[in-house]
Amino acid sequence: MNAIRPVRILGLDPGLRRTGWGVVACEGARLSHVAHGVIAPPDKLPFAERLLVLLSGIEAIIAEHAPDEAAVEETFVNDNARSALKLGHARAMALVAPARAGLPVAEYAATVVKKAVVGTGGADKAQVGWMIARLLPAAGKTTADAADALAVAIAHAHARTAANRTWRVA
Amino acid sequence: MNAIRPVRILGLDPGLRRTGWGVVACEGARLSHVAHGVIAPPDKLPFAERLLVLLSGIEAIIAEHAPDEAAVEETFVNDNARSALKLGHARAMALVAPARAGLPVAEYAATVVKKAVVGTGGADKAQVGWMIARLLPAAGKTTADAADALAVAIAHAHARTAANRTWRVA
Repeated sequence: MNAIRPVRILGLDPGLRRTGWGVVACEGARLSHVAHGVIAPPDKLPFAERLLVLLSGIEAIIAEHAPDEAAVEETFVNDNARSALKLGHARAMALVAPARAGLPVAEYAATVVKKAVVGTGGADKAQVGWMIARLLPAAGKTTADAADALAVAIAHAHARTAANRTWRVA
Repeated sequence: MNAIRPVRILGLDPGLRRTGWGVVACEGARLSHVAHGVIAPPDKLPFAERLLVLLSGIEAIIAEHAPDEAAVEETFVNDNARSALKLGHARAMALVAPARAGLPVAEYAATVVKKAVVGTGGADKAQVGWMIARLLPAAGKTTADAADALAVAIAHAHARTAANRTWRVA
């Protein structure tokens, strides 16, 4: 049996106004907080420049915290195609920055993330924040965007641990 | 009166399967063809990697052809929010690559592009291709995606010339 080395996971909750990010270390079933924050490009910048702030921001986080894998929240899409198009632009930064750094990028639906962290896919933001504070006490106070990003990282940690178990049985 | 120096414009017609690109040089009202092509990320790559192929491809084009400005087609959004979301991801690559290279990035609606090139916003792809062949004979045979990208570049050339005229009158 190989020893399981700690793996650093970057979770991202993408948005044009605010992209939440969080890094957790995962050693088997043990999780620990590394860092978290929010990237908020100024509204008054041209659209392309706002995207660049997101891209450069995520690249800087990857350079500083050296994650091994990335997990991005799958965005809920309502009926508004114009807002979906805009959100797609921001979300692309969360996918392409880790890909360029050579990290595998996993995507999780919001319901899967909530279920992994709170136990139910219908949990609200307050419940997610509360569970993040319990699961990662070292994180201290987090904004909703950063808590969501840490939650995505935790969902990925659970999914990959479950996958590892399966591989061992097979 | 200042002499007008030739300006190189990169036009982009973004899409996940195929992103068309074209570079034209513009000296006053005179246009000339520099280069064009299509970036087509393999379907079988993971989504984040396909975006990375687009981003790296556009960056390579900018490095090779040294455009001064970029123009990107505003995508027509129909009712399908899921396809709009996906398209937004691809389109973000066309915006952020020039922004990172320090180029101003202009956006033009498809109807504005068609009007600039063919004279009517309702022109079809065949008409755009035919006009591109007349306006830029050195371009030779172009695919629809590359022709659309060259058309965006031409629309930007017209818009910036018109803007310069206005400034001179004022």
